[in-house]
Amino acid sequence: MEQRPTPTDSQGEVRALVEALRQGSRRALARAITYVENYDPRRTALLQALPAATDLPYIVGITGTPGAGKSSLMGALAGVLRHQGRRVGIVAVDPDSPLTGGAVLGDRIRMLQHTDDDGVYIRSMSSRGNPGGLARATWEVLQVLGGAGFDVLIVETTGVGQTELAIRQFADTVVLVVTPGGGDSIQAIKSGIMEVAHVFVVNKADLPGADITASQIRQALHLRPAQDWQPPVVPVISTTGEGVPALWDALQAHYGQLDKAGGLAVVRRDRWHAQLSLMAESELRARFYAYLRHRPPTWDHLLQRLSRGETSPSLAAEELVEHFLQANGLPASDGIH
Amino acid sequence: MEQRPTPTDSQGEVRALVEALRQGSRRALARAITYVENYDPRRTALLQALPAATDLPYIVGITGTPGAGKSSLMGALAGVLRHQGRRVGIVAVDPDSPLTGGAVLGDRIRMLQHTDDDGVYIRSMSSRGNPGGLARATWEVLQVLGGAGFDVLIVETTGVGQTELAIRQFADTVVLVVTPGGGDSIQAIKSGIMEVAHVFVVNKADLPGADITASQIRQALHLRPAQDWQPPVVPVISTTGEGVPALWDALQAHYGQLDKAGGLAVVRRDRWHAQLSLMAESELRARFYAYLRHRPPTWDHLLQRLSRGETSPSLAAEELVEHFLQANGLPASDGIH
Repeated sequence: MEQRPTPTDSQGEVRALVEALRQGSRRALARAITYVENYDPRRTALLQALPAATDLPYIVGITGTPGAGKSSLMGALAGVLRHQGRRVGIVAVDPDSPLTGGAVLGDRIRMLQHTDDDGVYIRSMSSRGNPGGLARATWEVLQVLGGAGFDVLIVETTGVGQTELAIRQFADTVVLVVTPGGGDSIQAIKSGIMEVAHVFVVNKADLPGADITASQIRQALHLRPAQDWQPPVVPVISTTGEGVPALWDALQAHYGQLDKAGGLAVVRRDRWHAQLSLMAESELRARFYAYLRHRPPTWDHLLQRLSRGETSPSLAAEELVEHFLQANGLPASDGIH
Repeated sequence: MEQRPTPTDSQGEVRALVEALRQGSRRALARAITYVENYDPRRTALLQALPAATDLPYIVGITGTPGAGKSSLMGALAGVLRHQGRRVGIVAVDPDSPLTGGAVLGDRIRMLQHTDDDGVYIRSMSSRGNPGGLARATWEVLQVLGGAGFDVLIVETTGVGQTELAIRQFADTVVLVVTPGGGDSIQAIKSGIMEVAHVFVVNKADLPGADITASQIRQALHLRPAQDWQPPVVPVISTTGEGVPALWDALQAHYGQLDKAGGLAVVRRDRWHAQLSLMAESELRARFYAYLRHRPPTWDHLLQRLSRGETSPSLAAEELVEHFLQANGLPASDGIH
């Protein structure tokens, strides 16, 4: 039987791990990520020994509908950054939608052109059936990548409903990727992501309608109340790399704007103040679904009573929540995998 | 000081209320809705005395993006049903998005043409800042309307992200309303609502592009695996009422299909089995946000520690959830208003 590490063992081991991480050890990186992903007992000590989230390097968020070419864009952007000698850590978040699974996998493979390069690290994460657990895991992998000395971090999420807006909690700069036609731009205007994105990319800009899409976005942006930052619209062909240096210029311009607003640490604090409740909500959902996966004893009984009309949907839901709260959640170690 | 009703008082009063409701009293209807909305102590007894959710009348769900004309469509549909002597109960759910507030209010006013008619009852509900509480309240208002003898119930939600899919838990037939152009149809195909809707309405069918939109939807439907029910695409001009009788025919056809599948009670049971966890998740979120509204004592301290880099976003979120779970949720009466 494996012995659990004592707190003192852990602290020594974690210190050594963080030091190895800092020196660029890939093995340490893999191990640290395993600790946070598996809710290892050493996880809390590790997170406390890593750089604070306020001190993480610049984080770029990339979002857009499935098929907008986000992964190849990330690949191209990573290429530009590598050319400048910058080390890039990438977290690709799959909300694990059955609708997009195939396309996402294809995108991942296209992006793997960087796998032989030690200056690029790509981690793909999925919710594996536990909605809500992703936000926590993403945060912690970002902290690990920060501890491993990457210069720029990129988070990519598929923009389906709320995940699209959730990228705000991570990213210093949010990039929305749209494609010509397809209604992406109009939908973006409606969905609220327009208020969130700092840079717009019209990807596949060699397709017909790219100019129209770009001007639709610009028009919509002009209708907003004036703000300190006027989001640029950057045409890109990510498969050839055209426009990608201009995208990096736009990102740097936004970074400069954040600097004027007090720097990363200050703007991050303000963002988290506004979003701690959302982050906690994700965590709570993760706990609840972990609880449900254990098929609580009340489950079948509730469904039977619901079927017989002896309880109502809302009362049944309430009862299930009561049972969860009385169980006081599961131990955190069962929370997210 | 007002005295709390004892359980015995409650039972007598609730029985009388349910009887008055059954006989068509508008005052009883208003009072019963107040009980469920305000989490009155008599709420549980009331819900248990009302018809079981399996026995509710036919429930039609209407969803679509803001501006698709859902409210005027509901108004026109209610008109057709009134003409046939059917009594119609309507629940209009506003997810309370600041982006759509104005438009929704305007829609509501246009719909109020039926307010003088005793055979139509319209209840507008918003989340009032408590996401998650709406699903419970909607369920319970539907049960009250069922107890008041309405023949058809209609639930309308604005299709923004997840709410669009949540309508499945309520509705026997889901109607997706799209408009010509605007990318609605393409977005519907991407978002997953395509898999959920039983009837498609192309509203504002007098606008250019209506035929193209209808055929885009039909094409996308043909790409799906064959199913027992082939969703019709109905062109409607809800401001003039054109196409609305055809929509009612389509709804009745789907109702007939549900009958073949075992009738409302059976299909509802199957639906709830699949969705109890989602319903409970809504309830849990409602409890959590009610807890946060009370500004738990840890809140400011957590934000300070987060600001100082003494904790990380994920650890702070985890701590907040722990505090919520230890408080064992709030009393349900504080849950949702």
